[in-house]
Amino acid sequence: MAEALATRVEEIKKGMTVDDLAKQIADLRKQVENIKPGAEDRVSIIVFSGDLDKVLAAFVIATGAVAMGMEAVMFFTFWGTPVLRDPGKKVGGKDLMGKMFGFMLPKGKNAIKLSKMNMAGMGTSMMKSLMKKKNVASLDQMLEMSAELGVKIYICEMSMSLMGFKQGEFIDYPNLEYVGVATFLEQAKNSKVQLFI
Amino acid sequence: MAEALATRVEEIKKGMTVDDLAKQIADLRKQVENIKPGAEDRVSIIVFSGDLDKVLAAFVIATGAVAMGMEAVMFFTFWGTPVLRDPGKKVGGKDLMGKMFGFMLPKGKNAIKLSKMNMAGMGTSMMKSLMKKKNVASLDQMLEMSAELGVKIYICEMSMSLMGFKQGEFIDYPNLEYVGVATFLEQAKNSKVQLFI
Amino acid sequence: MAEALATRVEEIKKGMTVDDLAKQIADLRKQVENIKPGAEDRVSIIVFSGDLDKVLAAFVIATGAVAMGMEAVMFFTFWGTPVLRDPGKKVGGKDLMGKMFGFMLPKGKNAIKLSKMNMAGMGTSMMKSLMKKKNVASLDQMLEMSAELGVKIYICEMSMSLMGFKQGEFIDYPNLEYVGVATFLEQAKNSKVQLFI
Repeated sequence: MAEALATRVEEIKKGMTVDDLAKQIADLRKQVENIKPGAEDRVSIIVFSGDLDKVLAAFVIATGAVAMGMEAVMFFTFWGTPVLRDPGKKVGGKDLMGKMFGFMLPKGKNAIKLSKMNMAGMGTSMMKSLMKKKNVASLDQMLEMSAELGVKIYICEMSMSLMGFKQGEFIDYPNLEYVGVATFLEQAKNSKVQLFI
Repeated sequence: MAEALATRVEEIKKGMTVDDLAKQIADLRKQVENIKPGAEDRVSIIVFSGDLDKVLAAFVIATGAVAMGMEAVMFFTFWGTPVLRDPGKKVGGKDLMGKMFGFMLPKGKNAIKLSKMNMAGMGTSMMKSLMKKKNVASLDQMLEMSAELGVKIYICEMSMSLMGFKQGEFIDYPNLEYVGVATFLEQAKNSKVQLFI
Repeated sequence: MAEALATRVEEIKKGMTVDDLAKQIADLRKQVENIKPGAEDRVSIIVFSGDLDKVLAAFVIATGAVAMGMEAVMFFTFWGTPVLRDPGKKVGGKDLMGKMFGFMLPKGKNAIKLSKMNMAGMGTSMMKSLMKKKNVASLDQMLEMSAELGVKIYICEMSMSLMGFKQGEFIDYPNLEYVGVATFLEQAKNSKVQLFI
């Protein structure tokens, strides 16, 4: 008893009370709660390329990530932008350059080619029939799956402006947004995985 | 003395005992232990390209990372897959498409070319002799070094299936596994660095 | 009072004093302070490609990142290296191979071409005039902006050695360093975003 009291007296001499400690613990708890442990469970992909093989790889990764419980964001820019055109949609009011780009760039996902071994389209057709035979999802199926899984698609506004594309000529997709590079970077910097494809 | 006791009484009135605090501290400690501070010290590389220059870059990064004390995982997919074929190994039982791909795709690491300035092979030969002269490790030496350093190599199962490759026709390598994209993503998402090459 | 003392006695029997708890809290605080919450607010880009479109994309991302308050580091390697040559600077003392590479590789940022649709230079000129019209910064302006914003540029020493480039033939830039892959990886592994372009 005497010992207990003596200990307590000593503690109080040092100026520490249970109250002080409780305050310290509360402070510490706040600090711990403010620690952001790593990034968010998201894959952010820049789809710069418009080659069939690379676009397919981007979708395999994005849908694979969502299947694993992660989020996925795809930012289509430069050669990737025309991949998302809907060939059935026509828009007017383009200037000469816009018309030229519209003519020269592939009209959507079914018009893009392999980056290698395209062999005047033969390689690309071969790859497509092979994918079907081996039960690998086609780009059409990939897009459908992505829409269902909630993969977010961003289209780069700067590329649209450069190539003269209008919002009205892109595919219908539930999670599609037209954004600048800053919006993408904001998502990307807090993602666990970022890829430039 | 009286003061000490008074303080203690007040504390107890507030319902806080040293026991309570100890419990709070234990809780907090558990929380702190569960915080994963960032990702693991690993570089995860998707080797999608089959160009000599890009494959070399991938190996320079992977071996460089291990030399710095990190882990490295390389996931060979699409055009990267045939780079790991062993031209000395023959496998049978391929269908027509598999035979065609086997014929058209480069037969291993010594058959791949620069992505630019290949100039009918002259640029590639020039680069190889230059690397030797400047004491830059060749792809052969890179693979040997990678094996020794413990760089993990994954071969993409979907690419194998598409191109009709069999496990029996790849190089001997101590840390080689045949995996799907999910296995790679599982590693990649907890890595500090991820690259698509 | 008696109750208070009894509680205290019990605590002391268990061997816990306010002092002990204070020590535990101090330990815990140190642990919390040592937790590095994720990576640093930096984008690290490997500029492997020497194509106008890809180099532009790299600069858009780097300057965009700095505009958002992040740091940016660009590591120019392989085909990216000659992009930073200053065509006005001549250096002597090159061997035959160095002279050949010097002749064949593009002489700086105004000599590089689009990766696609170059069409003997017509596509590249078209893109440049389009960028001007649409108020998209040219590569010249990007470099100026990068210098002002403090984007760090690294030139890969191994690429310089391979291609026979000397430090004297690169552009003047305030934050330019000649480094090995290890220096880049050291920065990259603690960055929030890493890209291979």
